Amino acid sequence: MTTAIRNRDNWPIAAAMVTFPGTLPDGSSVQNQSVEQWGKTLGQVVDAGFTELDPTDSWLCLADLSPERRRDFMALTKSIGLTIPAISTARRSVIDPERGDEHLAYSHRLLETAAEIGCEAVSFGLFGPLTPAQKAELWFWTADGVKNPDDPATYKKAVARIRELGLHAADLGLEVSLEMYEDTYIGTADGTVKFVNDVDVPCVGANADIGNLVRLHRPVEHWLSMIEKLAPYLKYWHVKNYMRVEDKAQNLIASYPTSMALGIINYRIAIQKALDCGYKSAFLCEHYGGDGLTVCAMNRDYIRTLLPR
Amino acid sequence: MTTAIRNRDNWPIAAAMVTFPGTLPDGSSVQNQSVEQWGKTLGQVVDAGFTELDPTDSWLCLADLSPERRRDFMALTKSIGLTIPAISTARRSVIDPERGDEHLAYSHRLLETAAEIGCEAVSFGLFGPLTPAQKAELWFWTADGVKNPDDPATYKKAVARIRELGLHAADLGLEVSLEMYEDTYIGTADGTVKFVNDVDVPCVGANADIGNLVRLHRPVEHWLSMIEKLAPYLKYWHVKNYMRVEDKAQNLIASYPTSMALGIINYRIAIQKALDCGYKSAFLCEHYGGDGLTVCAMNRDYIRTLLPR
Amino acid sequence: MTTAIRNRDNWPIAAAMVTFPGTLPDGSSVQNQSVEQWGKTLGQVVDAGFTELDPTDSWLCLADLSPERRRDFMALTKSIGLTIPAISTARRSVIDPERGDEHLAYSHRLLETAAEIGCEAVSFGLFGPLTPAQKAELWFWTADGVKNPDDPATYKKAVARIRELGLHAADLGLEVSLEMYEDTYIGTADGTVKFVNDVDVPCVGANADIGNLVRLHRPVEHWLSMIEKLAPYLKYWHVKNYMRVEDKAQNLIASYPTSMALGIINYRIAIQKALDCGYKSAFLCEHYGGDGLTVCAMNRDYIRTLLPR
Repeated sequence: MTTAIRNRDNWPIAAAMVTFPGTLPDGSSVQNQSVEQWGKTLGQVVDAGFTELDPTDSWLCLADLSPERRRDFMALTKSIGLTIPAISTARRSVIDPERGDEHLAYSHRLLETAAEIGCEAVSFGLFGPLTPAQKAELWFWTADGVKNPDDPATYKKAVARIRELGLHAADLGLEVSLEMYEDTYIGTADGTVKFVNDVDVPCVGANADIGNLVRLHRPVEHWLSMIEKLAPYLKYWHVKNYMRVEDKAQNLIASYPTSMALGIINYRIAIQKALDCGYKSAFLCEHYGGDGLTVCAMNRDYIRTLLPR
Repeated sequence: MTTAIRNRDNWPIAAAMVTFPGTLPDGSSVQNQSVEQWGKTLGQVVDAGFTELDPTDSWLCLADLSPERRRDFMALTKSIGLTIPAISTARRSVIDPERGDEHLAYSHRLLETAAEIGCEAVSFGLFGPLTPAQKAELWFWTADGVKNPDDPATYKKAVARIRELGLHAADLGLEVSLEMYEDTYIGTADGTVKFVNDVDVPCVGANADIGNLVRLHRPVEHWLSMIEKLAPYLKYWHVKNYMRVEDKAQNLIASYPTSMALGIINYRIAIQKALDCGYKSAFLCEHYGGDGLTVCAMNRDYIRTLLPR
Repeated sequence: MTTAIRNRDNWPIAAAMVTFPGTLPDGSSVQNQSVEQWGKTLGQVVDAGFTELDPTDSWLCLADLSPERRRDFMALTKSIGLTIPAISTARRSVIDPERGDEHLAYSHRLLETAAEIGCEAVSFGLFGPLTPAQKAELWFWTADGVKNPDDPATYKKAVARIRELGLHAADLGLEVSLEMYEDTYIGTADGTVKFVNDVDVPCVGANADIGNLVRLHRPVEHWLSMIEKLAPYLKYWHVKNYMRVEDKAQNLIASYPTSMALGIINYRIAIQKALDCGYKSAFLCEHYGGDGLTVCAMNRDYIRTLLPR
């Protein structure tokens, strides 16, 4: 997939469209916007200095566009200098109790789409929709969300369905990255390593989005310990960072989104460990809190300083 | 007032002198400094890359200088490349129980001064002096301050006096911006919209300084909801940002000043909504906490990336 | 020591190697690394734009290298454009109950080494090793560490030993800077001023590393009050910054490492006060939390904006 030598100048580092809502203030959907309207949003991404984009299906489901509309979208991205190294799904779990089958079919469709438009990777996760309790919080991660059941049959189903997607991806020359997310089967470093090994398809690995974990207002494994376990399994990687304060005496745990350089995860070390294990995939910049696109742009510039010349 | 087309290169974005104290370590006042001494302070503002300045009357009351000293000050600013698009008042409420009449007279004088030196706008507020309890805190916003009384007669007086200033401003070709501040009649989005409508003078609008609100360690309306209500009413705008953590389970609310890009208010969205409503006024960068001038300079550069080319 | 005129372009601002561990993941020590291995680490420091380095003895004890290995190290630093204006010790207290004599002998050796390689300053402290309780915390400063005893004889011994080092340093043309650290005799502004005066050797002064203090989750003196007391006594200065939230009503005190511009200490004011008192020593950038080297590089660039042209 990645034959050319990558360096700090050309390594693909994509902007996540997660910072833009899929439903607009007037209730309409990005899915139905005109090319000009898409262009207005993507123009901001270009203006922020990005040359790679992950549409992220919370913003736009490329796989659900008609072939003609998808061609229009691709022509637009090409005209403004954006490529799409990967596509991330969000909250489309293939073991969702109600919509798992639907999500599985969508995931296969998405792999076909990703191959068609020249992506290298697709990111899948096992996390569910935000709960009403999460939506009622200022930051959704301060309330518990949907949990994967502690049930061997469901675990087995998850492994089987992801293996099925992995084999499909392998046929298409794609890699599959599994997004770490709390209270899912890929919600800890150990759980993720086990799951990837259980799936046992070489093109399937871990999306070490441990920002999802270090932001939790509960005890979590130290980031360095997690990265040491995950480094050999890394694929397409969602990177973001958080401050994290813990104080046992005050019974306090609190986090806040910040730039990659300032947050608790030392990405200088994390990325070096990944490179030492042969990491060659693209990066995806995400950021919740404040102006996500601007912080993602800072983070992109920062990541480049950590990559080989 | 603003006839030339404004873009990201020339939009006036002023440094607030609020980051410099009006009383010096030796007890003397900026009001009595020599031109050379003023120049030493303003040289830092120029060195930080600013071309616009708001003297902010907590640092220097231009309206209380003699005409000769004011000419000296203006000659100084001109010589170092600074213009003054607007002047902000702080803690000079026209309904202050003891000094309201004095502040009203001062406010009229200030309008005359602002017109004389070529400003576009003046910012007034209804907030009082810091209380001893506030001064005893590390961050004054963690203690309650003076509150505007829940009293129709005082409310009516506030509207009448601001209308009087608004009509004066209109005569002079100035706009009046009303600074949002907790526990005043313009302390919430709804309250501000009502107050501006009650004043009912076209050149009078809202200074949506919602940084003053999102920093409070108590429940506050979501910034996006506030901006949606305020967007049609915006005038000269004090911008600053804060991190804000809330955790119901820990009974925790805490804030900390940070750069505009990193804080909870997404100024990419806020400024876009303002521009969509025809916002043409200058911006004022403020920052409490750490090196305010340096953070204001970062914020100025950030704001420019959000403005039209 | 510092005869040439220093300005924002040439003022020595060193990277602290405190952000790199002295013990590697495989259990080996930086002390025994090859020149190539040292070069790989120092290459990152150069890549981050530094031209000055403080090896910091938590990373590498220059004084404990053989003369030949030390020459190799110096040849390496020279070849990649790094100079060493000063060396900092960490957790080598000359009044350590068990290893004080050993640390004293080491400190004398270090002075000889520092002079040999052309340093201007050495930083000593009276703080002890991290306790198990501190190591068990996410951030070690949220647990109490070793305290200097409230015992006149030990205090007297500390003064005598630091004076002995100061006289040795004076002979060698070096300055000695004493690092402020909580619960040591130089753990408050008043204590530091008293200690420096008790030592009473002109080349011995204060390393006002008040970041060590403002990060404590307990009441601390305001940074400005500390700097006002310390300004006349400043020598080689470890600079870093933290956010600090206090809320009496919530019984909350919390800190988090951030960039120098964003943290609670206003270094624009602190450095100006130092310069006004004739400060001419180098600066050392430290940062705990996240990517320390990258944040140190930001801080270096920031410090330069505060120094005279």
